[in-house]
Amino acid sequence: MNLTSNRGNIIKGKPVADKISESLIKEVDELVNEGITPKLAIVRAGSRGDDLAYERGALKRCQNIGIDTEVFELPEDIAQEEYIDLLKKINNDKNIHGVLCFRPLPKQLDEKVIKYAICPEKDIDCFNPINFAKVVEGDKSGFPPCTAQAVLEILKFYEVELKGKKVTVLGRSNVVGKPAAMLLLAEHATVTICHSRTIDLPKVASDADILVAAVGKAKMATADFVKEGAVVVDVGINITEDGNLCGDVDTDGVIDKVSMITPVPAGVGSVTTSILAKHVVKACKLQNNR
Amino acid sequence: MNLTSNRGNIIKGKPVADKISESLIKEVDELVNEGITPKLAIVRAGSRGDDLAYERGALKRCQNIGIDTEVFELPEDIAQEEYIDLLKKINNDKNIHGVLCFRPLPKQLDEKVIKYAICPEKDIDCFNPINFAKVVEGDKSGFPPCTAQAVLEILKFYEVELKGKKVTVLGRSNVVGKPAAMLLLAEHATVTICHSRTIDLPKVASDADILVAAVGKAKMATADFVKEGAVVVDVGINITEDGNLCGDVDTDGVIDKVSMITPVPAGVGSVTTSILAKHVVKACKLQNNR
Repeated sequence: MNLTSNRGNIIKGKPVADKISESLIKEVDELVNEGITPKLAIVRAGSRGDDLAYERGALKRCQNIGIDTEVFELPEDIAQEEYIDLLKKINNDKNIHGVLCFRPLPKQLDEKVIKYAICPEKDIDCFNPINFAKVVEGDKSGFPPCTAQAVLEILKFYEVELKGKKVTVLGRSNVVGKPAAMLLLAEHATVTICHSRTIDLPKVASDADILVAAVGKAKMATADFVKEGAVVVDVGINITEDGNLCGDVDTDGVIDKVSMITPVPAGVGSVTTSILAKHVVKACKLQNNR
Repeated sequence: MNLTSNRGNIIKGKPVADKISESLIKEVDELVNEGITPKLAIVRAGSRGDDLAYERGALKRCQNIGIDTEVFELPEDIAQEEYIDLLKKINNDKNIHGVLCFRPLPKQLDEKVIKYAICPEKDIDCFNPINFAKVVEGDKSGFPPCTAQAVLEILKFYEVELKGKKVTVLGRSNVVGKPAAMLLLAEHATVTICHSRTIDLPKVASDADILVAAVGKAKMATADFVKEGAVVVDVGINITEDGNLCGDVDTDGVIDKVSMITPVPAGVGSVTTSILAKHVVKACKLQNNR
């Protein structure tokens, strides 16, 4: 696809998610016909608003696809041992194929210990370091973080050429920036990772054919961050002073410059739960040698 | 350090290795006084020439520092089960603190299985994915691959500023390119990873303040790959037609353009075994709660 041919196209997440769901419905149908129903467990300690919102979306998505779900709601002050005991129970439950642990965990829980307690085969959102290593190694048998994978799926759906292209990732978090960079590298992009210490960030960012913003700073990527004709994927979800959602990119400011840009909301966030569902089905198949 | 002030300096590995060794000798002395002698196990299946050469260097380095060593030489056709049994024995041996497995393994051994058999606490050359994940996550409790770590130690020894600087890594291997990129990212460099599919490689490379070449192609990085005043770290070790060693960088061609460059031989390779020794001591201390 010619990167300058679709100036200012807003590329939404919904068609991407719908296509993934459509294909999953068929896969789940086949599994159910064999007597296997994929099942997702959600482990949530406490009831943070954004966790609940994501949970509602994930449950709805799974329901529509035919994936069973079970939410394990734990008190916010749960002891580490009890949390780990639950993970062990889930690890041993043959009817559960994937598990999502909401993070960040409450303070008393040591993420550095708990992440090893979730068995890699059921770890569908890349909590266990073994899956993280697989993403970086380019080993496709693991489960990348859903948001990072969503970035890739959107670019593929809209037929954005990645091979050899210059991709700049703004942000180096372990949940989005780094894994997204590694997934794009595996697609043979030339990847640059930028962050708060980068000197002359706009110059480095505007050198990219494809810009992925995952910093968590409202509208920080302004027009000077974007090359004429670039494709922009905006992973940020920030709340503005007037209570609206916005991304890391100043969409209005860059819209006349870019060829495509994902909106916030209705962009990357809309694809994440379909990746989650896809990972549950993948895990279910692997665990049942399908 | 001003990147243009030392035009054409050849920066050797030996002073870096010597400094590390010097500090390790003291650390080992203190441990020995407490009745603890750090010990390295080397596991080698077969007797490839480059393995043997590296082994000789590693044994000599350890000896000079006061680290005990034991070489487990296995037949090249050893069965996977036996190889894993040996690793288990080493894992359980309280007198061994670090283990180096020569790779690539012989064909009949499945690296994807064996890498999980080495316990992460003794895995001083980043074979186990748990250590690989730690490198990428920026978790300093693990053990990065010795060669990747050597790149960083050389840059630090020669006081090359990394924060905010543009670093380009040529090569995306899991043993050097990616981990070196991640170590440099943790030092707040702006990191670009290039590879064979990168479009206009010389242009991307010559944009960097610091160029790390880890491709394994003799003298592939010519003058057009290098910015005026850049620092170049040449990780490649290649054998020329006339039987000499050379790096991935055309040293003669770039020497008048760079501010510093590591030679091949006597560059990165000279530092690797001192990092190995450093990791053995670190592992020994961690295992003895020191």
